[in-house]
Amino acid sequence: MNCRGGGCHPIGGPMSLLKRIEAALEQHFSLSSTSTAPPRLMEAMRHAVFPGGARIRPQLCMAVAKACGEDDHELTDAAAIAIELLHCASLVHDDMPCFDDADVRRGRVTVHKQFGEPLALLTGDALIVMAYQVLARSGRQHPMRTVQLLGMISDGVGAPDGIVAGQAWECETRVDLSRYQRAKTGALFVAATCGGALAAGVDPAPWRELGDTLGEAYQVADDIRDVMMQADQLGKPAGQDAHHGRPSAAADLGLVGALDYFNRLMQTAVDSVPACESRAAMRQLVLRESERLVPPAACEMISRQQVGTSTRVSA
Amino acid sequence: MNCRGGGCHPIGGPMSLLKRIEAALEQHFSLSSTSTAPPRLMEAMRHAVFPGGARIRPQLCMAVAKACGEDDHELTDAAAIAIELLHCASLVHDDMPCFDDADVRRGRVTVHKQFGEPLALLTGDALIVMAYQVLARSGRQHPMRTVQLLGMISDGVGAPDGIVAGQAWECETRVDLSRYQRAKTGALFVAATCGGALAAGVDPAPWRELGDTLGEAYQVADDIRDVMMQADQLGKPAGQDAHHGRPSAAADLGLVGALDYFNRLMQTAVDSVPACESRAAMRQLVLRESERLVPPAACEMISRQQVGTSTRVSA
Repeated sequence: MNCRGGGCHPIGGPMSLLKRIEAALEQHFSLSSTSTAPPRLMEAMRHAVFPGGARIRPQLCMAVAKACGEDDHELTDAAAIAIELLHCASLVHDDMPCFDDADVRRGRVTVHKQFGEPLALLTGDALIVMAYQVLARSGRQHPMRTVQLLGMISDGVGAPDGIVAGQAWECETRVDLSRYQRAKTGALFVAATCGGALAAGVDPAPWRELGDTLGEAYQVADDIRDVMMQADQLGKPAGQDAHHGRPSAAADLGLVGALDYFNRLMQTAVDSVPACESRAAMRQLVLRESERLVPPAACEMISRQQVGTSTRVSA
Repeated sequence: MNCRGGGCHPIGGPMSLLKRIEAALEQHFSLSSTSTAPPRLMEAMRHAVFPGGARIRPQLCMAVAKACGEDDHELTDAAAIAIELLHCASLVHDDMPCFDDADVRRGRVTVHKQFGEPLALLTGDALIVMAYQVLARSGRQHPMRTVQLLGMISDGVGAPDGIVAGQAWECETRVDLSRYQRAKTGALFVAATCGGALAAGVDPAPWRELGDTLGEAYQVADDIRDVMMQADQLGKPAGQDAHHGRPSAAADLGLVGALDYFNRLMQTAVDSVPACESRAAMRQLVLRESERLVPPAACEMISRQQVGTSTRVSA
């Protein structure tokens, strides 16, 4: 089935996935918001999660689960939501004064600016733990899958190769750019694709490359946008990589080189989608994401610097 | 079996439990310390965990598992180690400048003083996640128990009633002392006792009161020591509760009142040990802990302030 355009994807269009994600997030937040909870902590946790960004990681997780013949919706939702909560937690901690010292995130004031540093630190911690509470609540129907998800998702976040380790590479004197980007961003994308397969009770190995490549592409796109865009377009401070002396593909390869690298990664991602019933739809999802990450206007602006070096991805 | 004294406990004396805890911690650290890990992050994580404090939470977890007829040593170890890692993570974050701004912990320089604030923040995060990696590695033999442990341990740490929520009560304008202490310390003790039962495949409910009461007693003892002792005896800065205007039993009740309250709590803890083969040994463990928490010399010093108000616990 080669399904293009709006609402006919067997994996669900972005709107239906987004609705499912928001509903599952709301459900778990209301389960955690008891009368015994410290009210400002709960408010800060909500501030960090709602309204969301693109929710690309949970969308990817759900799309892969659907492509793998999802049979436990609650567990798929839990895996997707856990990954999004871990992502939000990492943003809260990354924004804190000892890292980016950012005032703005997703167009709103950051958690530590709104609630103070102590509560921001605790909010990140509580969101990490909430990810696991979500898994625990939804894991009893398929406990063995849940234990596998527990390992897969944790490895995407912790040491030695998860997003926390990626962030920690910024504190080392010698850094390998590819390993840094793979850990800082790629690891949670791998957790998203492989987690979707595991939630559906399917071998995750064939889905690893998609997550790995998309994650690296996402980080390269982030580097490109960090150089090109103004803060009001980004919804967060611009020029942060140069400001913090962080490794950056745009700094290493130049904008044209970084865009070429991004396009090659997205092509690899499209090609890596394993044989499954909804392969065409999965590839469309990757393509849509490619255009969202580096909009055609930005491509054109960069290409004007050096004509003919950049070729966009095809399905 | 009423077993008193040194090494004949069916639940294992403190030395054998401690050896088992250190061995399991070392094993999981070596599994996480791959060649791809950021070396300073791994060093900071080790600094936060070794050498340990009293390791009372994992000892308690293992002792309860043994009392419940432990049949999956690896899962018991994982539950105990996970709880200890979460405790160490909370200490690293609590010591940071936005909370206690402590220079010393367990007699050594704190993580943020040794490795800087960014790495201290990441170390806490990575230790939280490592707790779950440990559970995932050891959970396949009994996946349903592992999912239950996942929920029990997470609820001891996160919102609405875990240790992170307890810490967050310090950021609220109105605080209930008992709820604050129950969350800040008691919740992880409940995770320890109930987690031990779950790891052994046994209903955790009868073990909740022991964890809850011991946790509150531990917090009261901490308040007493914070007032009475010098920093070099404590291994961390003294007088922190008053300095940070934190709720404290010693401030609320006075030293004599706090000691009385502590002794009543320890008696409740001793009495709460459910019927099991090694009940006498479990009660001895609680008694030993009581004397470690508030040493007889401290009791005497306080009692001199007001003769006859304080009665020690009996088995």
